[in-house]
Amino acid sequence: MSLTATARPTPRTQPSQLTRTIAFVAYPGLTFLDLVGPLQVFSALPSVRDGFRVVVVAERLRVMGNDTPLDVVPDSTFDHTTDPYAVVVPGGLVSTPAAMADQSLLDGVRRAATNAEVIGSVRTGSLLLGVAGLLDGRRATTHRMFRDPLTAFGATPVAERWVEDGPYLTTDGVSAGIDMALHLVSRMTDQQTAREIQLLIEYDPQPPFGGIDRDTVDIAHHAPVAQQFLTETLTGHPDLLTLLRG
Amino acid sequence: MSLTATARPTPRTQPSQLTRTIAFVAYPGLTFLDLVGPLQVFSALPSVRDGFRVVVVAERLRVMGNDTPLDVVPDSTFDHTTDPYAVVVPGGLVSTPAAMADQSLLDGVRRAATNAEVIGSVRTGSLLLGVAGLLDGRRATTHRMFRDPLTAFGATPVAERWVEDGPYLTTDGVSAGIDMALHLVSRMTDQQTAREIQLLIEYDPQPPFGGIDRDTVDIAHHAPVAQQFLTETLTGHPDLLTLLRG
Repeated sequence: MSLTATARPTPRTQPSQLTRTIAFVAYPGLTFLDLVGPLQVFSALPSVRDGFRVVVVAERLRVMGNDTPLDVVPDSTFDHTTDPYAVVVPGGLVSTPAAMADQSLLDGVRRAATNAEVIGSVRTGSLLLGVAGLLDGRRATTHRMFRDPLTAFGATPVAERWVEDGPYLTTDGVSAGIDMALHLVSRMTDQQTAREIQLLIEYDPQPPFGGIDRDTVDIAHHAPVAQQFLTETLTGHPDLLTLLRG
Repeated sequence: MSLTATARPTPRTQPSQLTRTIAFVAYPGLTFLDLVGPLQVFSALPSVRDGFRVVVVAERLRVMGNDTPLDVVPDSTFDHTTDPYAVVVPGGLVSTPAAMADQSLLDGVRRAATNAEVIGSVRTGSLLLGVAGLLDGRRATTHRMFRDPLTAFGATPVAERWVEDGPYLTTDGVSAGIDMALHLVSRMTDQQTAREIQLLIEYDPQPPFGGIDRDTVDIAHHAPVAQQFLTETLTGHPDLLTLLRG
């Protein structure tokens, strides 16, 4: 795939023992912007700061779909990504329960997280961290529809845009992933570097109808929808369903 | 690629003559978020409104890179995407000049745009529209570094986040693509539908260090950088370079 060679930012240094690897986890059916928002932020990092590289890891190097028509090919595997500095797990919707039951994926996430100093998730990615046993005793958040089920994993659900607890950094909405990534770059380097990347990707959002007015969102309506969704998608995984229903 | 089947929103109707196709253009080296931001917005549309389908078109169905480590596979070709309702061309940075010299790509964009009611671009995507001869006499915008070169194509550069002129809708920064897409959904359907999608993808951006303060960005510094960039990347295309230098 030589076509890609000229398209990527050129790292100032070759990967070495001092290079910190930011590993984004890919799995079939994920919500694409959950992955690509923070991926775009971090992919700009090697062009402005030494010592970082970015990979997208999966169980195997295979073509996989997401919730858009654009199929993707990850560039590394869990076996080839040892001791990343940071692991980021994007969320999905229809795909999340299947991913939660994918022991091989969960094992990959656990291994990647073992020595990671940052273990992040976007939206329902925290359910994957939870079922992998990584959020026990931690404060965490996720898409609001699935916040309560976090308790099934020993986590304390928090109604914030993103929640930091030790190495864990979990977020709610899709686009919160971009904001979280800028925050994380700042934490890993400095605010100037994060601002430089923000300018590089011209991230200056101005939603045409304003932000989301939480007061108008029918939260009570969400709980049964979430339960029905879990029931339908977890039909083949009664143990997981029982766990999540509490 | 049956893996993708469960991950995509299920259109309520099968494609028919009444189905409007939103075609996103993919080419090697594009800026990934330019494509994926609006793609995520529009990929949610068929799940909330009948009569739309979304495709990512390229010259050929091949694996191609972008400015992140994640390679992608488009799901259609220009030959198989006749008369789309909308065409959206994402931008690139290092890749844009090569794309501007790719006559086959430009021909595909021109053909797709022939009967389109919406011809959109994100960031430097408008340079591709320009060199394809589509912006002559139009008001348009692009990444601020490359705004002046738009005049080479007979366009009038405008310093706005997005500019609408007839069927043309061009934007500046990367993330403006998401905002533009929500605006476009509203124009194509209604504001309620756009707000529903905004809630679905939980697009409620809150950049941790605020938006971009245009007053602190050294605009004068950009012109020579842009010229140097064009000179370096267009070495093999002196005619294009002469055109853009004005």
